[in-house]
Amino acid sequence: MFKANVYVTLRTGVLDPQGKAVRESLLSLGYDETQEVRIGKFIELTLDVDKYEVAKERVREMCEKLLVNTVIEDYRFELKEVTL
Amino acid sequence: MFKANVYVTLRTGVLDPQGKAVRESLLSLGYDETQEVRIGKFIELTLDVDKYEVAKERVREMCEKLLVNTVIEDYRFELKEVTL
Repeated sequence: MFKANVYVTLRTGVLDPQGKAVRESLLSLGYDETQEVRIGKFIELTLDVDKYEVAKERVREMCEKLLVNTVIEDYRFELKEVTL
Repeated sequence: MFKANVYVTLRTGVLDPQGKAVRESLLSLGYDETQEVRIGKFIELTLDVDKYEVAKERVREMCEKLLVNTVIEDYRFELKEVTL
């Protein structure tokens, strides 16, 4: 069994209106030190797979096919073996 | 200048309908090994602050006041000093 932590972020240069709105809220709350805010997704997957290499390839495929819009988003992930 | 990576996840026991929908999509695509999917947020903040301790306290406050709904969400963050 493996657990994957997938981090999905907007590519550099892609506008992030949600991040902009959060930044403006932080500024209005007095957090004047806030320079930039970018908001992405953090996806935790639990996979019933025995081999690290298989898990790695399957997560890569899931990202490319469903989890990530690779036109505007980047991703990276970590895998760790877990026992449930 | 500090960069903070904030990871916001649903608390254990809180239902995650978005994660459930993604899991069902993965299963329908043939990824039968998918056991659980939980979806959270990944927030990158850039802060114009000089001291590590100040940055840490400010990010904690931002999380408690705006970024995280602490009733249903947990968070953790990492800080690193950056030069722009």
